[in-house]
Amino acid sequence: MIKVGVIGYGYWGPNVARNFNETPGARVVAISDADEASLRRAEQSYPGVRMIRNDADLVTASDIDAVAIVTPVSSHFELAKAALSNGKHIFVEKPFTASVAQAEQLIELADRKRLKIMVDHTFLFTGAVKKIKELIDDDVLGDLYYFDSIRVNLGMFQKDVNVVWDLAPHDLSIMDYLIDKEPTAVMATGVAHFNNNLEDVAYITIYFPGNVIAHLNVNWLSPVKIRTTLIGGQKKMLVWNDLVSDEKIRVYDKGVEGMEGFEGQSKEKSYGLRVSYRSGDMWAPRVNQVEALRGEAAYFVECINNNVTPKNDGNAGLRVVRMLEAIIKSLNLGGTLVRL
Amino acid sequence: MIKVGVIGYGYWGPNVARNFNETPGARVVAISDADEASLRRAEQSYPGVRMIRNDADLVTASDIDAVAIVTPVSSHFELAKAALSNGKHIFVEKPFTASVAQAEQLIELADRKRLKIMVDHTFLFTGAVKKIKELIDDDVLGDLYYFDSIRVNLGMFQKDVNVVWDLAPHDLSIMDYLIDKEPTAVMATGVAHFNNNLEDVAYITIYFPGNVIAHLNVNWLSPVKIRTTLIGGQKKMLVWNDLVSDEKIRVYDKGVEGMEGFEGQSKEKSYGLRVSYRSGDMWAPRVNQVEALRGEAAYFVECINNNVTPKNDGNAGLRVVRMLEAIIKSLNLGGTLVRL
Amino acid sequence: MIKVGVIGYGYWGPNVARNFNETPGARVVAISDADEASLRRAEQSYPGVRMIRNDADLVTASDIDAVAIVTPVSSHFELAKAALSNGKHIFVEKPFTASVAQAEQLIELADRKRLKIMVDHTFLFTGAVKKIKELIDDDVLGDLYYFDSIRVNLGMFQKDVNVVWDLAPHDLSIMDYLIDKEPTAVMATGVAHFNNNLEDVAYITIYFPGNVIAHLNVNWLSPVKIRTTLIGGQKKMLVWNDLVSDEKIRVYDKGVEGMEGFEGQSKEKSYGLRVSYRSGDMWAPRVNQVEALRGEAAYFVECINNNVTPKNDGNAGLRVVRMLEAIIKSLNLGGTLVRL
Amino acid sequence: MIKVGVIGYGYWGPNVARNFNETPGARVVAISDADEASLRRAEQSYPGVRMIRNDADLVTASDIDAVAIVTPVSSHFELAKAALSNGKHIFVEKPFTASVAQAEQLIELADRKRLKIMVDHTFLFTGAVKKIKELIDDDVLGDLYYFDSIRVNLGMFQKDVNVVWDLAPHDLSIMDYLIDKEPTAVMATGVAHFNNNLEDVAYITIYFPGNVIAHLNVNWLSPVKIRTTLIGGQKKMLVWNDLVSDEKIRVYDKGVEGMEGFEGQSKEKSYGLRVSYRSGDMWAPRVNQVEALRGEAAYFVECINNNVTPKNDGNAGLRVVRMLEAIIKSLNLGGTLVRL
Repeated sequence: MIKVGVIGYGYWGPNVARNFNETPGARVVAISDADEASLRRAEQSYPGVRMIRNDADLVTASDIDAVAIVTPVSSHFELAKAALSNGKHIFVEKPFTASVAQAEQLIELADRKRLKIMVDHTFLFTGAVKKIKELIDDDVLGDLYYFDSIRVNLGMFQKDVNVVWDLAPHDLSIMDYLIDKEPTAVMATGVAHFNNNLEDVAYITIYFPGNVIAHLNVNWLSPVKIRTTLIGGQKKMLVWNDLVSDEKIRVYDKGVEGMEGFEGQSKEKSYGLRVSYRSGDMWAPRVNQVEALRGEAAYFVECINNNVTPKNDGNAGLRVVRMLEAIIKSLNLGGTLVRL
Repeated sequence: MIKVGVIGYGYWGPNVARNFNETPGARVVAISDADEASLRRAEQSYPGVRMIRNDADLVTASDIDAVAIVTPVSSHFELAKAALSNGKHIFVEKPFTASVAQAEQLIELADRKRLKIMVDHTFLFTGAVKKIKELIDDDVLGDLYYFDSIRVNLGMFQKDVNVVWDLAPHDLSIMDYLIDKEPTAVMATGVAHFNNNLEDVAYITIYFPGNVIAHLNVNWLSPVKIRTTLIGGQKKMLVWNDLVSDEKIRVYDKGVEGMEGFEGQSKEKSYGLRVSYRSGDMWAPRVNQVEALRGEAAYFVECINNNVTPKNDGNAGLRVVRMLEAIIKSLNLGGTLVRL
Repeated sequence: MIKVGVIGYGYWGPNVARNFNETPGARVVAISDADEASLRRAEQSYPGVRMIRNDADLVTASDIDAVAIVTPVSSHFELAKAALSNGKHIFVEKPFTASVAQAEQLIELADRKRLKIMVDHTFLFTGAVKKIKELIDDDVLGDLYYFDSIRVNLGMFQKDVNVVWDLAPHDLSIMDYLIDKEPTAVMATGVAHFNNNLEDVAYITIYFPGNVIAHLNVNWLSPVKIRTTLIGGQKKMLVWNDLVSDEKIRVYDKGVEGMEGFEGQSKEKSYGLRVSYRSGDMWAPRVNQVEALRGEAAYFVECINNNVTPKNDGNAGLRVVRMLEAIIKSLNLGGTLVRL
Repeated sequence: MIKVGVIGYGYWGPNVARNFNETPGARVVAISDADEASLRRAEQSYPGVRMIRNDADLVTASDIDAVAIVTPVSSHFELAKAALSNGKHIFVEKPFTASVAQAEQLIELADRKRLKIMVDHTFLFTGAVKKIKELIDDDVLGDLYYFDSIRVNLGMFQKDVNVVWDLAPHDLSIMDYLIDKEPTAVMATGVAHFNNNLEDVAYITIYFPGNVIAHLNVNWLSPVKIRTTLIGGQKKMLVWNDLVSDEKIRVYDKGVEGMEGFEGQSKEKSYGLRVSYRSGDMWAPRVNQVEALRGEAAYFVECINNNVTPKNDGNAGLRVVRMLEAIIKSLNLGGTLVRL
């Protein structure tokens, strides 16, 4: 039985607590939050569980095997370091850390202590992402051309991070999982419209070897919520709309068949097409509708018990943070290409 | 009666010919196309109209008052220059010219000859763009935050221009019309996936004074056709979906109300919102469904007859070409910011 | 403090229990269910609450003020009668009873005992129905022409009732609330495709005075879920799509302006329109997104405490059951018109 | 070369004329219309074609092989009878005739004269209906459960026919083509809201052997245009939305798997499901986007030249008129079931 302590009972913490508590082989034994009201809410839902005002008391508690850190990113490093130092496995909210250096230090520490790090890249455990992964791995899409994601809505502004740190980790972790290549460079543009100087609109391009390009459009000032990703492959292309309840993924048997004649020097005036297109059926595979966090919690327990390295381990977290750092650097340099 | 000669009877030419022919005060008197089959199609539809194999013969014909140049951009300059030199008003397909220098030369020539240039920025004459212009001019949206447009579909690849030259002129001309500011810089990223070395996917950011940002997503490799523009304003925000037949424009009474406390240095851990949002009704104003080209043709005739400078004159065409040139430069430099 | 006993902890019971428990002025003190597993689930969620195997023991318990009956319709009458006889207010799942006679008997009993009956017409407490009611009461729609509802999905087949008893009570209760007229007749057609002889597809027409017509399309065999209602009025028309999260209600400024000439005897051959149409803006009013059952539970408590007759009282329940009875009669007679 | 005369150049006539004129093996040689303005429009488009003011002169013209009758239904019989009597094949707008008796008389006359009748059931020639027919014929859907169609919009009111005669012929002809069974009875309800006493809202049920049921919802007073048909089969179910440009047909691998236990007498209280459902992938087959009338015109020419009986012959027209007659009878009797 993995005894879990949960730090942070704000917006996402209750979900983490509930899912760990309902996972066979795990049990939540302590919850900490500096906020009195949050702690009282936790107490109501978990009458038998220890409530702790001071996070430091939780990470040192001798009856805890693993700590779930569900706090703002600025506090991840200190809490994670303390937990690992005290021999606890950690489950850390995304983004993993506030810097590459922090992530590397935690990975090194966990390695030394033979402890597991899991970064909460929840989307990897959704039916939709699992199905897309399967389509890519089975070569249904063929060689990838691009990954183009839009993640916009109204709010939520946060006081210490911009829209990139808030929204892009979702797409970056999904992209990292789906595209089996190392990104080579990033480039980002954006604007802050309020006097907090935090970008609320940003556009990110990520380059991969082999002419694969990814693009993320993140925006806190959109009147409508959009969660749409287009993935273009040489054999098939797909559209993933995460906001619909059915048919989230649509696979199109569409593409470019041939490009003959393009090298030619024909002089003709007319708008000449030199391409033939394939435009066939559309197919929406059934997508499993389980709660992603449920599967992730079970996987965390399984990784600890069977000494398995999670796919969303510290290194996965590090890769996302490395891209975030480069994106912010590009933003600050006014859109300069930043090599990774 | 304005006697119009139409050069180019390929994909768009027939629409231009039909609309000019049906415009009171205008009549198509000659059509030229080097392609035999195109010319034969023209002859079938316009039995009484003169068919000309050689474009040069059309631009010098003494019975022609105005020339509509509906050919690939590479030929615009020579044809336009010849037409103006021969005293003809010109209606030129977008993009106006292949370079800023060409555009400037044509504008200067037309000025000297006291002739009109109209660049076929057709979208300016759609009910949707006219309605959006009205909403902006009436300050319904308030100060603009961003203009974010997606224009993607499968194909059509062209043999001599990339996806930017093909698709972006639409958005650039719309943006130029709607945003009453001079852009200060552009930045573009993109990739060519085929051996023609022409980008088929590109992402463009355009900066304006006052923290207004525009972004264009153009793609020839999308399995689905998308024509969606989000415009965020301080008072209201709108979504324009050009692919639906009804309710193309949706105006949302949504926005950020206040940002109090953001400057504060509060230490609290919880994900603190310091913003209040306004989320009210949505409203889809009735949009006139006239054929845009019809209104544009009538406007061309009116500009000539009443000596009015068209809103889509040579200078509007030049502004679009200037942005295109800068975008291509940025693309070629690997995404460097290019000041305008 | 109203002490509530909940009978039935199957599909809907947990929602009823949770909402009553969280309503100020109410507390769930007992839950009964003959099914062992259901009772155990209830116990887990409500550790301090009395669990009862026998429903009869709950309705006679002296510490209970009100009973929520969340069981199949076949058991409503006996349980409700026992509860009222024992001096308890009742909250009854829809449809109220299995027959008009039962409903009338319960209403009479409650009147005599000065107890409240509330029938769980949950939809009356949704933001959408409240907004539509407001639009009708404020004469925004004008005189009503029709009410046309589609409520289809795959399943859920039930062992003792057909699709009419399962799905139509929703629409009938909404219609009863919105249309301020007494229906005069009903007519229904339908088919049973399986050997249970319970209709799984049915179409219902309901006539009202003044040429108002209502139609319900209910279907257990639809591959897609549809919850759409069209309401046509003389001034405006609306579409309510309950499956979208935003803009559930769209109000169209559309209608027929005039019908001049229709009485004429013109001989002309052409398809002559004698009508002019009004086609203006569309408007989606903001709809409150509260949980309907929450508001309904609070209203139940308020009606008891302040001796108010609920809008969804026994008579509202009776009106729905009377329509259901007539609909079933029409179905059984092969679609004959049944006067009410 | 089939020489075609077209009677009626109002709303649909221009399409019929254009398509016959562009069909290899056919040529339009005469057009008649009593309306001066219509005739002038025809003349502009077909300068070389004979324009006739009096329909009677067209049907007797010796140089005409076939007559397309594109006039209101009230005039079909006299024109068709005259055309057939004068030895001409006829192409008749739907609905075929104003009564069963008229249709039978024309069929008899055509048989005697060995002439072809084609009724313009245009939808049979659309890519969508052809694809659905294929899916049914290939037993992809399995045994049919129901056919449920909605065809609503604002207008167009007509001066002499109600919404049933205006809109239902589309669905009836499609249904007649797709469902390989003879309908046994119809039932219809509806209301007229204006003083012309013509129903503008109507609901029609059609019964077929084997528990197949069809339902049509036709409405001239809907704020939104809907053209959606659900077809439920034992193996698969489909939704056809004719208003979208792509993915008009969606085939769902959904259904009811088994119904075990339904006959049982289990006493349990809980809402017992005795059914298992199948919920698999969705699939949108590519649908050909040709102009339907083009294919129909070519088929008419082919049927004449090769002496083939059209699938949409006089008997198909008669079957639709027979249903229409029965529907009107049911409407007039207040919704009584009318056996066919």
